Amino acid sequence: MTDSSTNMRLKLPITCFILEIILIILFGVLVVYDDDTDAKAFNKNMKMNNSTAGFQDVHVMIFIGFGFLMTFLQRYGFSSVGFNFLIAALSLQWATLMQGFFHGLHEDGKIHIGVESMINADFCTGSVLISFGAVLGKTSPLQLLIMAVFEVTLFAVNEFILLTILGTRDAGGSMTIHTFGAYFGLMVTRILYRPKLEQSKHKNSSVYHSDLFAMIGTIYLWMFWPSFNSAVTAHGDPQHRTAMNTYYSLAACTLSTYAMSALTAHDGKLDMVHIQNAALAGGVAAGTAGEMMLTPFGSMIVGFLAGIISVLGYKYLSPILEEKLKIQDTCGVHNLHGMPGILGAIVGAVTTAVVPKEVYGNGLKKVFPEVASGDRETTYQAGMQAISLVITLAIAIFGGLIVGFILKLQVLGAPRDNACFEDSVYWEVPGEEHFEEELTAVRTEETEKMNS
Amino acid sequence: MTDSSTNMRLKLPITCFILEIILIILFGVLVVYDDDTDAKAFNKNMKMNNSTAGFQDVHVMIFIGFGFLMTFLQRYGFSSVGFNFLIAALSLQWATLMQGFFHGLHEDGKIHIGVESMINADFCTGSVLISFGAVLGKTSPLQLLIMAVFEVTLFAVNEFILLTILGTRDAGGSMTIHTFGAYFGLMVTRILYRPKLEQSKHKNSSVYHSDLFAMIGTIYLWMFWPSFNSAVTAHGDPQHRTAMNTYYSLAACTLSTYAMSALTAHDGKLDMVHIQNAALAGGVAAGTAGEMMLTPFGSMIVGFLAGIISVLGYKYLSPILEEKLKIQDTCGVHNLHGMPGILGAIVGAVTTAVVPKEVYGNGLKKVFPEVASGDRETTYQAGMQAISLVITLAIAIFGGLIVGFILKLQVLGAPRDNACFEDSVYWEVPGEEHFEEELTAVRTEETEKMNS
Amino acid sequence: MTDSSTNMRLKLPITCFILEIILIILFGVLVVYDDDTDAKAFNKNMKMNNSTAGFQDVHVMIFIGFGFLMTFLQRYGFSSVGFNFLIAALSLQWATLMQGFFHGLHEDGKIHIGVESMINADFCTGSVLISFGAVLGKTSPLQLLIMAVFEVTLFAVNEFILLTILGTRDAGGSMTIHTFGAYFGLMVTRILYRPKLEQSKHKNSSVYHSDLFAMIGTIYLWMFWPSFNSAVTAHGDPQHRTAMNTYYSLAACTLSTYAMSALTAHDGKLDMVHIQNAALAGGVAAGTAGEMMLTPFGSMIVGFLAGIISVLGYKYLSPILEEKLKIQDTCGVHNLHGMPGILGAIVGAVTTAVVPKEVYGNGLKKVFPEVASGDRETTYQAGMQAISLVITLAIAIFGGLIVGFILKLQVLGAPRDNACFEDSVYWEVPGEEHFEEELTAVRTEETEKMNS
Repeated sequence: MTDSSTNMRLKLPITCFILEIILIILFGVLVVYDDDTDAKAFNKNMKMNNSTAGFQDVHVMIFIGFGFLMTFLQRYGFSSVGFNFLIAALSLQWATLMQGFFHGLHEDGKIHIGVESMINADFCTGSVLISFGAVLGKTSPLQLLIMAVFEVTLFAVNEFILLTILGTRDAGGSMTIHTFGAYFGLMVTRILYRPKLEQSKHKNSSVYHSDLFAMIGTIYLWMFWPSFNSAVTAHGDPQHRTAMNTYYSLAACTLSTYAMSALTAHDGKLDMVHIQNAALAGGVAAGTAGEMMLTPFGSMIVGFLAGIISVLGYKYLSPILEEKLKIQDTCGVHNLHGMPGILGAIVGAVTTAVVPKEVYGNGLKKVFPEVASGDRETTYQAGMQAISLVITLAIAIFGGLIVGFILKLQVLGAPRDNACFEDSVYWEVPGEEHFEEELTAVRTEETEKMNS
Repeated sequence: MTDSSTNMRLKLPITCFILEIILIILFGVLVVYDDDTDAKAFNKNMKMNNSTAGFQDVHVMIFIGFGFLMTFLQRYGFSSVGFNFLIAALSLQWATLMQGFFHGLHEDGKIHIGVESMINADFCTGSVLISFGAVLGKTSPLQLLIMAVFEVTLFAVNEFILLTILGTRDAGGSMTIHTFGAYFGLMVTRILYRPKLEQSKHKNSSVYHSDLFAMIGTIYLWMFWPSFNSAVTAHGDPQHRTAMNTYYSLAACTLSTYAMSALTAHDGKLDMVHIQNAALAGGVAAGTAGEMMLTPFGSMIVGFLAGIISVLGYKYLSPILEEKLKIQDTCGVHNLHGMPGILGAIVGAVTTAVVPKEVYGNGLKKVFPEVASGDRETTYQAGMQAISLVITLAIAIFGGLIVGFILKLQVLGAPRDNACFEDSVYWEVPGEEHFEEELTAVRTEETEKMNS
Repeated sequence: MTDSSTNMRLKLPITCFILEIILIILFGVLVVYDDDTDAKAFNKNMKMNNSTAGFQDVHVMIFIGFGFLMTFLQRYGFSSVGFNFLIAALSLQWATLMQGFFHGLHEDGKIHIGVESMINADFCTGSVLISFGAVLGKTSPLQLLIMAVFEVTLFAVNEFILLTILGTRDAGGSMTIHTFGAYFGLMVTRILYRPKLEQSKHKNSSVYHSDLFAMIGTIYLWMFWPSFNSAVTAHGDPQHRTAMNTYYSLAACTLSTYAMSALTAHDGKLDMVHIQNAALAGGVAAGTAGEMMLTPFGSMIVGFLAGIISVLGYKYLSPILEEKLKIQDTCGVHNLHGMPGILGAIVGAVTTAVVPKEVYGNGLKKVFPEVASGDRETTYQAGMQAISLVITLAIAIFGGLIVGFILKLQVLGAPRDNACFEDSVYWEVPGEEHFEEELTAVRTEETEKMNS
């Protein structure tokens, strides 16, 4: 396992130190507290407090949810949780700057940050972690750090185009987070295609306990998705409505996932891959329309469809993507984030178009401010929503291709084909002491018998 | 393991699809946003926001708490977390409708739902999951779905009788949730009695790591119980008081649980079954009186007793229930939810009777509105509390018996006696790859030595 | 394993019962609801509600965070989570009384408790759990209970001297919680020094799955540290600022931890011990200055340094402490809580001294009330901060030495040198059934072949 290229002794420290020092310098030069966080400004203006409760729920999804969801691999738990931790810690700092350039830059030339910017940085980080799911097991921590730096930057560009220039609504990020992260990651893994990956095939699967660890991730993502989709919506009815729509979408999605899993899997038995992933597609698909007057009824239909599409994707589409398009998508992010993200974007555009603005009453200004102010018609807004999906796909695919080529650099220390999905390339891995002791005991005993 | 009756290939998908489609249709016809969630109504009335923070805490208990608490079985972790997930996702949708018929039906003939209805649906779901604990390992997912549909319905009926007709107070659900769920489940498992269950006996126990997974469930239930008991109390002092009473009840319960476990278990060693379960009894027992002026002192006495009763139940009563009454209670829900639930109901009635209303001052109207308005005396209220326990027991026992007989239908696919407590009946279970490889290696090596 | 001294059959129950009965009596005599929790008082005064959300986040850190962080040992998971649970449940009750004597005692001679006292009791409990980390694996539950009683008492004394007498600011407890808990525990483990501990050496390490369980603890501590440090700060800007400073300190700390781990560990591979622990040092180090105008820039520098110091401590200082000073620090609390706690105290004093009070504007009174009122200069305040560190170290070291000698009492049932780091001394431990079955099968098969 001692391969000079995968040895991280100098590469990783140098990269981490340089990145962190650049971040610290940029924060020193550019970043100040916003009015809600600054002692002087707050106590002059006395504006309404943001709550940190929503932030903490999103934070749990990013670090526990994504981290443990990926521990399903039998010998890649350290890397799943550990690299998730590393690249998330980098991404949220870099995202603060990148999103700050576009959203938070004030007339004083400074980036003003507070609780809401922390939530937005976590959102951006989520997108990077989705891409991580596509390349899981096949990349070095160095490649992941480099990927994160580029992806965060492109995420901020795409988000700026959608939310600021086009006035698109996407509170839970069906487009900005899920579609973007999925197709970006799929393109990266396409470029990093390994024809001989079957050399590591026996490790690209779960064992009993690793599936249980992964369920910790699944359940946390599932539970807090209502907080995720509603974290940056306006306070009051949009926040409640988004949480509720997401809740019912996920519940319906769970039933259709179990149904489809039993229907398609071997012998009518449930497949953990489906339960761990497809049951979450309802949250992704409610990301754009969640804050709209989608109704619980509409939300359940969306979730129901998302579960079906996602299981079918795992069963039939993923093998095709791998064989025909050479896209090796370890976690199946296309099925959990890609297709449900597109579904969510479409549902958002359709909901925008078909729900009359009278339904919103005075609440219209919180959901569609430009429609409420008379600057736009709902059909125009719906058009913007649809165009946003196309732009997101374009930036994600193009960006992923470029970044994929960058990550091919030998120096970044990707694992060899026969050492993928294996923690011990980058981690000190302890032995299974007791197990080994007892095996040794058996061996010794038998040998002694042989000799006697 | 391929048994035509337990094969879920068509049964489970058909059931899930039919149930979900019925739910979607009923939601489409009957359900609308409440004033706190609807864009138009909210922005006309501007009422106080409900917080989603309390909801998220309860949600964690339902999906992580109950789900992982039941993973203690060595080969039933997928089913514990997975079936918990499935029936909870169904129950919360069905509960929304059933509780809505009784609580949320407005003059317009619609069910108005919002954050509070989501918490109540989660509460009802908790009751179903308690019953699941009694039958754990011995039922098919199909049986569980059918059980959930009936139990949710009866839960809503009982809750309506108690809270609306009788004006009973039961914020944390000692009666409505715990006593109901426990005795309902115990009756179901009584009817499903398996005389030959010892054929699966070797799987009806824990292994080292499964006990650690179960502790995740225990600790989450323990930590968030203050939020659970206070989730639907009035804002302000009742919410703080309920959280605090529950906190001290649980702390005292934990000490008496450890004491009793060491005292009763083999060689003075602690028994994980007690720690995982009995330490939670203090939360159950504070469910009714938690919002009352029970005082921390009273709460600690209640918790202290609950822990003792619960450990004694596990040690001495459960074996008797199984041998004499033929009640095979896998998780010991009688000890965790049944007896502590009854204790909680009694404590609630006594506290209502003995604490003079002067102690509440102007706060009386939030805890006992009918006493505050002069419609009732505290003794009358206490009588209602006591009667409510009897009604709850009657509906739970009678309902459980009926539903138990329904679940005996062959077509529902219960596992055979020698395949209980075993995931592989209903799940694709991965091998323990490394372990098997090494065992094979030992075998091969030894064989080679033999042959040489 | 049946050793009369370690047998807890009578000792543990008697101790738990006596302690809990004393607690109940003292609560009955001394404790009443505060105005925010009492029905009468609240509804007379209508003061602002405290939120229970911050409390719940801290609670998660205490029970899941600390509990699972210590499950890294291969055969000590039951004790790690279980003893953590037991001593935390005791400590929070005892802390309520001890802190109440100093902070909450009103003119009526009663201790008034509410949501804030629950948070403070959890904080004090955290300190005990840090000390638990130093002696992990080498003490009986009885020793831990006795330690908790003394440590909570001394914690309350130290906290009173710092916060009330000296007017020191330490919202996140760099001094009161981390420095105190670490040096207290280090002194206890020094007195309990075991020259023959290498007899248990093979159990004083992790296995693959135990490291993953420990990561649950790490990630929860990491995620909720912003809530921890800001839980008792003033509402509004200090709360937001503290959460934000902690967030960036931790993010920077994570990058420097990964860098240093790869740089110092074998073959450039990452070491789980560093990731699990050192990545948290940024939270400890931001405990005092977090509420001050430290700026994100300053926070990142602090976190960055904390990660470096902590990894270096694990790598180079811990072995020296063990060999030269005979301090056997199981979890390395000196590296995670000790040195970063001192760093945090120094950063707090320096920040107090160098940030001009004009920077705080009207917000000064929330952070430095005595400076705002003109009673003190900032330099005087900074001096008090520095003196507080010295006092904390003195009380912790002296207290730890005394308590260490008390814990040496034979009757408390410490495990023998060859039975440390082993659950089965105090717990019923299940076998690894499947594993044993299969090993037996191999054995039988081979034996049969031999005989044929």
